Amino acid sequence: MSFKLSEIAQKIGIDCRSDIEINSLSTLKDANSKSLSFFHKESYLNDLKETKAVAVILKEEFVKYLPNGVIALITDEPYKKMALATKLFAYKPTAKTYKAEIGENTEVCDSVKFGKGVKIGKNCVIMSNSFLGDNVEVADGTIIYPNVTIYHDSKIGSNCIIHSGVVIGSDGFGFASKDSTNVKFYQIGNVVIGDNVEIGANTTIDRATLGSTLIKSNAKLDNLIQVGHNCEIGEYSIIVSQVGLSGSTKLGVGVVMGGQSATAGHLEIGDRAMLAARSGVTKSLEGGKIYGGFPAVDIKIWRKTQAAIARLIKRK
Amino acid sequence: MSFKLSEIAQKIGIDCRSDIEINSLSTLKDANSKSLSFFHKESYLNDLKETKAVAVILKEEFVKYLPNGVIALITDEPYKKMALATKLFAYKPTAKTYKAEIGENTEVCDSVKFGKGVKIGKNCVIMSNSFLGDNVEVADGTIIYPNVTIYHDSKIGSNCIIHSGVVIGSDGFGFASKDSTNVKFYQIGNVVIGDNVEIGANTTIDRATLGSTLIKSNAKLDNLIQVGHNCEIGEYSIIVSQVGLSGSTKLGVGVVMGGQSATAGHLEIGDRAMLAARSGVTKSLEGGKIYGGFPAVDIKIWRKTQAAIARLIKRK
Amino acid sequence: MSFKLSEIAQKIGIDCRSDIEINSLSTLKDANSKSLSFFHKESYLNDLKETKAVAVILKEEFVKYLPNGVIALITDEPYKKMALATKLFAYKPTAKTYKAEIGENTEVCDSVKFGKGVKIGKNCVIMSNSFLGDNVEVADGTIIYPNVTIYHDSKIGSNCIIHSGVVIGSDGFGFASKDSTNVKFYQIGNVVIGDNVEIGANTTIDRATLGSTLIKSNAKLDNLIQVGHNCEIGEYSIIVSQVGLSGSTKLGVGVVMGGQSATAGHLEIGDRAMLAARSGVTKSLEGGKIYGGFPAVDIKIWRKTQAAIARLIKRK
Repeated sequence: MSFKLSEIAQKIGIDCRSDIEINSLSTLKDANSKSLSFFHKESYLNDLKETKAVAVILKEEFVKYLPNGVIALITDEPYKKMALATKLFAYKPTAKTYKAEIGENTEVCDSVKFGKGVKIGKNCVIMSNSFLGDNVEVADGTIIYPNVTIYHDSKIGSNCIIHSGVVIGSDGFGFASKDSTNVKFYQIGNVVIGDNVEIGANTTIDRATLGSTLIKSNAKLDNLIQVGHNCEIGEYSIIVSQVGLSGSTKLGVGVVMGGQSATAGHLEIGDRAMLAARSGVTKSLEGGKIYGGFPAVDIKIWRKTQAAIARLIKRK
Repeated sequence: MSFKLSEIAQKIGIDCRSDIEINSLSTLKDANSKSLSFFHKESYLNDLKETKAVAVILKEEFVKYLPNGVIALITDEPYKKMALATKLFAYKPTAKTYKAEIGENTEVCDSVKFGKGVKIGKNCVIMSNSFLGDNVEVADGTIIYPNVTIYHDSKIGSNCIIHSGVVIGSDGFGFASKDSTNVKFYQIGNVVIGDNVEIGANTTIDRATLGSTLIKSNAKLDNLIQVGHNCEIGEYSIIVSQVGLSGSTKLGVGVVMGGQSATAGHLEIGDRAMLAARSGVTKSLEGGKIYGGFPAVDIKIWRKTQAAIARLIKRK
Repeated sequence: MSFKLSEIAQKIGIDCRSDIEINSLSTLKDANSKSLSFFHKESYLNDLKETKAVAVILKEEFVKYLPNGVIALITDEPYKKMALATKLFAYKPTAKTYKAEIGENTEVCDSVKFGKGVKIGKNCVIMSNSFLGDNVEVADGTIIYPNVTIYHDSKIGSNCIIHSGVVIGSDGFGFASKDSTNVKFYQIGNVVIGDNVEIGANTTIDRATLGSTLIKSNAKLDNLIQVGHNCEIGEYSIIVSQVGLSGSTKLGVGVVMGGQSATAGHLEIGDRAMLAARSGVTKSLEGGKIYGGFPAVDIKIWRKTQAAIARLIKRK
């Protein structure tokens, strides 16, 4: 899919005459010479200064930080304008189904439905009534239980186990809502899952807004977990049931999150950190430590705090 | 479906000889001249005084509040007796499937199954392995992703997006349990969803006990949310993942609820109120303010409280 | 399925020459004269002393507690070694489907898929796109709504109602992770559900690691609940939506758990205990009382504590 920059600009209501070709919408960091990007948060200022995008949607006051030669699309509402642009690149849902390319020794129930261009490796089992959308790829030895849905463009590694009711690649939750019109930011990224990953029943993993949501090899996810768009879950991480990861949470290697714990978005949790059940993480946390409480703090502090709270009613 | 009042009375163990025709069970408020209703909570006393029901199940002491001419079915257990009555009007599940009435330019995967009398508008896409029960109606331009279940009598507006694994119209959780026998209150209402509503993966929206659960136009729901029976979600509301709304919660226009927040039942949240992630709402809240904590209070108070809690262990 | 003990020992890297036949892996308590068991937690010491297993995997220091004649398989990592053994007895997923044995007057939609040896009783309704795995049994009068998945070996009682999106019998979350390699403990138990049980939309019930996860008769479960492996839910219990029960939680008769409440694993809650919404149970609780808070305490104490917390910011 590609458009002239001027066409996109016209659709989103910004004045721009350049006929340069745009074939992707990207973050500032991932952009290339055919990407349109946007700048809406000062925390991305370094990315702005180094972007390889051909054009950037941004407020006038930040134009001075653009690298030489990058075209500025100026607006007071860069997030909303980018949201409008995503509509042009958005997936068009269809009910058509196709045959998949299926490896040796793989079993597929005849009730399974495929989008266009699906590739399944060897020695896989795809059970009843599951659906794999356009361009989904599944590597060797992966088991998909019944009633699983894998949206278009998702990539699943080898020897994974995907339990029933799992939804991979549904839209992340993105709305440009400043003016209360809830303009949808179409989710044009995907989900990439490594090898030996297990995903529990009815867990949902949202596709990235732009780029990829990543579940790295050997991570194990329990049931009814929400993984927001653009999250990254490190190798060997263990996520217990009903955990909620807000968008763009990054977990390091071997992180353990107890049941019903959760994170606010756009933060990082270091390697081998452990979160007690029901912890609520509100800022980035160093690795190698155990945390608890909401907001999550060193678990020793949380335990002392709980003891102090319990003592409150004895003092009176 | 209709019954003589005397037949219903006999089935539920109340003495009544009237042969008047009853064709619906209703709340006191929604009742008409062919409805049987019930009164079990003093907070509905005004509704009792003004009901248009032809007959009401209630305790003897409240008979004096009945409008002239309304028949009293007297019992000590009105909720349980009404629960027994709902069984007569309950949906009878069936595995039979039918052809739907499908609008122009709508795509339906051949693996989709329909109950009787389903109507789909124009320009819709209904993807693999979804199910739409008896009398479901879907308006123009709505997208239904794979593995969605929409129970009988649900009405879905135009240009909605329903993600995979969503369940709309399953039974609300109602049991007349006073005597520990967990008598089911059959859920004979429905779900009505407005236009431009988006519902995230694996979210569940229960049908109303009596009447309708309402998701109004332009509301956006994320993944793994529970919407209890008889809830009302106002226009442009934004509900983040893993939120739980107990039965009969009413959200105004443009309410924002953060991830994992929840409400107790039978309360109202005013227009444009915002609830921080994990808030637990225990009573009705005014609109236009930001709340946090459990029980949810003004967010400034909650932040001060959190700071005070953190200081507890420094004092010692 | 059966193996010589020496074969199993070789596969898991323990030295043992006995050619005795092993046809099951069991807990110490449930073991019989053809079972291999394991001992990894001191809390099971009494079970060790009385086990009927033919052989037990355990650390050297506990060999002295073994009953006479029981064979010891000695290792420093009994949990991990047992996990390796479970792979031999694990279910091998397949996409093949079969005809079921179906009772009189039962309706099954033609889109429903069955594993081998499935038996359905009389007067049941099995709706569209559901899946019932190998050896599943469903007793008379049970209703299964669309898009339900019931894994192999699950047993469902009579007159149950299973709502859409429910997953019964998926793998419990078990990994022998001491050395960060996340070795899967294959879940070779099952799920057994009594009569008159209702299970709400998108709820997940994990199969037992060894033995059975039990949902007893007349229990009612709401939507989006997680029931961990080896849990036991007592008769007439009421579990509200989004509750999380960690592995091996035992609820007595008539227990009520409010929405979003949760339990840590391996604990018991006595008959007719009530847990307020969002309670977090961290240790066993007596029956007949009402609890609230996290950690859950007598609700009067919790209320006083909440009041004391609210007063903290008034003192200053």
